[in-house]
Amino acid sequence: MRQLEKAAVLPEGFAASATSLEFVPAEKPDAGPLPMNLALLRMEHPSSSFAGVFTRNAFPGWPVVAGRRLLEAPAVQGVLVNNKVANVGPEGGLEDSLELTGGLREILGDAWEFFPLSTGVIGWRLPVAEMKAALRELPEKLQGESLLPFARAIMTTDSWPKVRCAPCGAGRVTGTAKGAGMVEPDMATMLACLLTDVDVPREAARRVLSEVTDLSFNRISVDGETSTSDTVLLLSSGVHPYPGDRVFREALLETAGLLAEDVVRNGEGCSHVFRVKVSGAPDARTAVSLARAVVNAPLTKAALRGNDPNVGRLLQALGSACGRAGLELRRSRLTLDIGPQRVFDRGRFLLDGESETRLQAHLAAAELPLPSPGWPVHEETVDIHLSLGLGDFSGVVTGSDLSEEYVRINADYRT
Amino acid sequence: MRQLEKAAVLPEGFAASATSLEFVPAEKPDAGPLPMNLALLRMEHPSSSFAGVFTRNAFPGWPVVAGRRLLEAPAVQGVLVNNKVANVGPEGGLEDSLELTGGLREILGDAWEFFPLSTGVIGWRLPVAEMKAALRELPEKLQGESLLPFARAIMTTDSWPKVRCAPCGAGRVTGTAKGAGMVEPDMATMLACLLTDVDVPREAARRVLSEVTDLSFNRISVDGETSTSDTVLLLSSGVHPYPGDRVFREALLETAGLLAEDVVRNGEGCSHVFRVKVSGAPDARTAVSLARAVVNAPLTKAALRGNDPNVGRLLQALGSACGRAGLELRRSRLTLDIGPQRVFDRGRFLLDGESETRLQAHLAAAELPLPSPGWPVHEETVDIHLSLGLGDFSGVVTGSDLSEEYVRINADYRT
Repeated sequence: MRQLEKAAVLPEGFAASATSLEFVPAEKPDAGPLPMNLALLRMEHPSSSFAGVFTRNAFPGWPVVAGRRLLEAPAVQGVLVNNKVANVGPEGGLEDSLELTGGLREILGDAWEFFPLSTGVIGWRLPVAEMKAALRELPEKLQGESLLPFARAIMTTDSWPKVRCAPCGAGRVTGTAKGAGMVEPDMATMLACLLTDVDVPREAARRVLSEVTDLSFNRISVDGETSTSDTVLLLSSGVHPYPGDRVFREALLETAGLLAEDVVRNGEGCSHVFRVKVSGAPDARTAVSLARAVVNAPLTKAALRGNDPNVGRLLQALGSACGRAGLELRRSRLTLDIGPQRVFDRGRFLLDGESETRLQAHLAAAELPLPSPGWPVHEETVDIHLSLGLGDFSGVVTGSDLSEEYVRINADYRT
Repeated sequence: MRQLEKAAVLPEGFAASATSLEFVPAEKPDAGPLPMNLALLRMEHPSSSFAGVFTRNAFPGWPVVAGRRLLEAPAVQGVLVNNKVANVGPEGGLEDSLELTGGLREILGDAWEFFPLSTGVIGWRLPVAEMKAALRELPEKLQGESLLPFARAIMTTDSWPKVRCAPCGAGRVTGTAKGAGMVEPDMATMLACLLTDVDVPREAARRVLSEVTDLSFNRISVDGETSTSDTVLLLSSGVHPYPGDRVFREALLETAGLLAEDVVRNGEGCSHVFRVKVSGAPDARTAVSLARAVVNAPLTKAALRGNDPNVGRLLQALGSACGRAGLELRRSRLTLDIGPQRVFDRGRFLLDGESETRLQAHLAAAELPLPSPGWPVHEETVDIHLSLGLGDFSGVVTGSDLSEEYVRINADYRT
């Protein structure tokens, strides 16, 4: 826990706050009263240096619509998040989001807007009256030390708060993310806020965030689903001088990469984090898309759940994706490693009873307990490497296995 | 059961047979001895009227390689199937398949080849010696009445034999299929044999089988996976005159369509069969691919498992697929029906507490018990209809939900 607290130190110029409320959903009165959290991130001074990357889902939540517009604003003041209701779909949802951030600005006397972020049930309307009342409690709880209260408040089915940081020039990057289901490579389903106190130029903020998102949150998958609300925000308080793109990019990628892996590790019902590398591909796009297909294959995922080094299913998943992509596999060039062990070598299956038992033990050692004890007990991964021998490009995608727990959580989410 | 026996009546000119054996897998000696079935379909006379459709997986099984070649042969005599070992991958696997069908021909004194089909574990080598010994038991068990012994013998994780038939001119079409996991729309993961005693011209057999497969087995999904062994064969004994393409196509589609739905209903851990129709699409290909994406979305599938009419997740899955396809959704035109009830109407979510409870009951009524009692207790489906209002095309894909049972089966398949 001490490590988490250390990672959660806010960059200079930021304050965080959180509170909670109860509401009865109009759409399902018998489900209530339900708890909801509100969480606030505020910069001391409005900033023109910010960026956002949003879901590509064609049915986006209203906060995504609002956030996209806000990218054009000269400056913003911070971020207001609620969990429990995603504000996706209902008529009037855009106005609801704006009424809430407007109310917050009034309370704080701020001229500039806050990004609204919402996560939770799709289709329900935000309980605006109850939320506006609770907003009043946020200012007094603002503190400039730790991101943890914010990180805890934005959780939904997450079982621990996710906070990561990296030094950056004279300042730092600190980030938090929430997300445990509907997590997909093509803009991971989650909310992430990346904060820095180095003075990134606005244009650099946008460019670097887009590059980093593509290499971190877009390379993970819990269930192949793109959420309606995926958002990654970057805010800079501009306290310290900008150390240049290279240094900043590295710090941002470290923070985002670790958060992305945290999201997988805390994926709904995740009992193994596994990393699939496809190398020897004819181009980078193909490498990533094949790795993604193997990560998302239900049979691969279920086998991993059972600590089963199922070489056949990995090859089947690869073959299936290649078939779809019209890419011809060459058995005579193909190799497959699971962890430290080569299991398929240019046409030959290598596992025998003994090596298979060894590999089962390797998988068992990377297993996480279910249901999650509320904290990751280790940071092990299962590394799978498919080498095609068809080119010079490679790509890595990180995912979670598929457990009974995933089904249990998702068959029973709203009740 | 009487219905099944009626459906299983063999077309004229066919005989079926089955036997079993035990073997110890060389790759996993401690797992043995394991049971394996052998099943035989034989025509009285060699036939030049046959057709086959095979998996598009780029890592196909050896029987698929052999089967593709056999399509060029002037005539074939029948089909030889084994379960338990899929013969995918191991060196020498093609020779193994041919040695077995060759051995069978020797025993039967047949000049023409049999299609070899195998299903089961990937990567293991066929126990050729034990299988060749068991082949000798097949001729004496040949009978011309029922397809049932064959349909039972080819099962793996299936919990009941699948047989369907349709009248066709002066004759009939009778088909059987096996397949319960790795079932995917893009050539459903299974073995299917469609038999007819009407004298289909060779070219018509190929054309019609391809069309029918696309509208039946290619429109179902259990887990979005393309198997390495998917095969649909059509054999004609040519006893009765050909009633023409239209009549034959209809009979073949009826048989194949019912078998495809059987495969979904018996999908691993299936507790709901659901049918997603997307209409109002700009073209047919888009309609089918969006329906497929909704059918394969793990969150949709898990919600259905819980009898949860989760409108939000259905729209999220549609939005995700549209986002990927670059298709812009219009909320103001979009409607969604679950069963008899409209739940989303051009921007408005319609469910209230009462109608949601009604819909839950509708879903519960379509639930199948798990684990499967070995026979489908009903033939209910959950019908989901998304109307986009963006064009005139529609498509339907049938799938199964995602249950804890699916994970249990697949985390533990080989042990």
